[in-house]
Amino acid sequence: MRVLGIDPGLRNMGWGVIDVRDSKISHVANGVCQTGTGPLAERLLSLHKQLTNVLAEWAPTTAAVEQTFVNKDGVGTLKLGQARAIALLVPAQAGLEVGEYAPNAVKKTVVGVGHAEKQQVDHMVRLQLPGVKIANADAADALAIALCHAHHARSSGRLAAALQRAAS
Amino acid sequence: MRVLGIDPGLRNMGWGVIDVRDSKISHVANGVCQTGTGPLAERLLSLHKQLTNVLAEWAPTTAAVEQTFVNKDGVGTLKLGQARAIALLVPAQAGLEVGEYAPNAVKKTVVGVGHAEKQQVDHMVRLQLPGVKIANADAADALAIALCHAHHARSSGRLAAALQRAAS
Repeated sequence: MRVLGIDPGLRNMGWGVIDVRDSKISHVANGVCQTGTGPLAERLLSLHKQLTNVLAEWAPTTAAVEQTFVNKDGVGTLKLGQARAIALLVPAQAGLEVGEYAPNAVKKTVVGVGHAEKQQVDHMVRLQLPGVKIANADAADALAIALCHAHHARSSGRLAAALQRAAS
Repeated sequence: MRVLGIDPGLRNMGWGVIDVRDSKISHVANGVCQTGTGPLAERLLSLHKQLTNVLAEWAPTTAAVEQTFVNKDGVGTLKLGQARAIALLVPAQAGLEVGEYAPNAVKKTVVGVGHAEKQQVDHMVRLQLPGVKIANADAADALAIALCHAHHARSSGRLAAALQRAAS
């Protein structure tokens, strides 16, 4: 299983790819899709192209996107929603199922607590992917989302196997 | 000039196409891209496909999308933002420039006042596009956006012509 994690953002869209084989998890690649100022349609088009290239280059088999934190800043929520649509659309266009995880669920899986600091998440990502070079904070978040998805997929796999054993 | 107007929405995305030749404006087609319940990525993918088909079938040369009204309902704003990203992305992918108009600007252009009722907008759209059959309220809004874009393009064209005459 090769997992693509995406941390959506209009200016900086972090992405991270990891490989999961049995109990072994390894880093594949990470980076950031960036857009500057300009018409929104152009920025979304650029994000779509950049993220499509990431999928073409790294060929993930499953994807996960962080759920957006809705806050009182309506304009910020709207921008994030627009970026998030691209993060969900591109893997779906490649035929992948797209998992969605709340920020707290990602932290809880990767760090053990739901209210962890950004620094702590970054630390645990580096611990679980030894030797990784991380592009920036958004790419670190994206790798954390990929790790969260890998852990969830593994536990649901174990659950399915246990149920199968119980039934046979 | 063939104008595509889009009224973004996750459940119902209205669209309308009009032709503008000199002073004559005529209706071409209108409709609604719809999605039901289900994973968000699937719904966005479906909207993207439907809207891409609309562009392929009606070949507009320019497009306009309504600016989203940010309100206190964060979840609603987020959903609308996600749908809006598709409305902006698809015409940009087809190489079209995408105009954006605030709801009040659309009303002001089509009805003459910025605080017009939905019914009044619908009435004026029917008046300007005689004989038009409108799919639903979202399609009517999309036609209003297309009319707004046509009027703005025409006035900026007139302005450019006047400036050219003044300069020559």
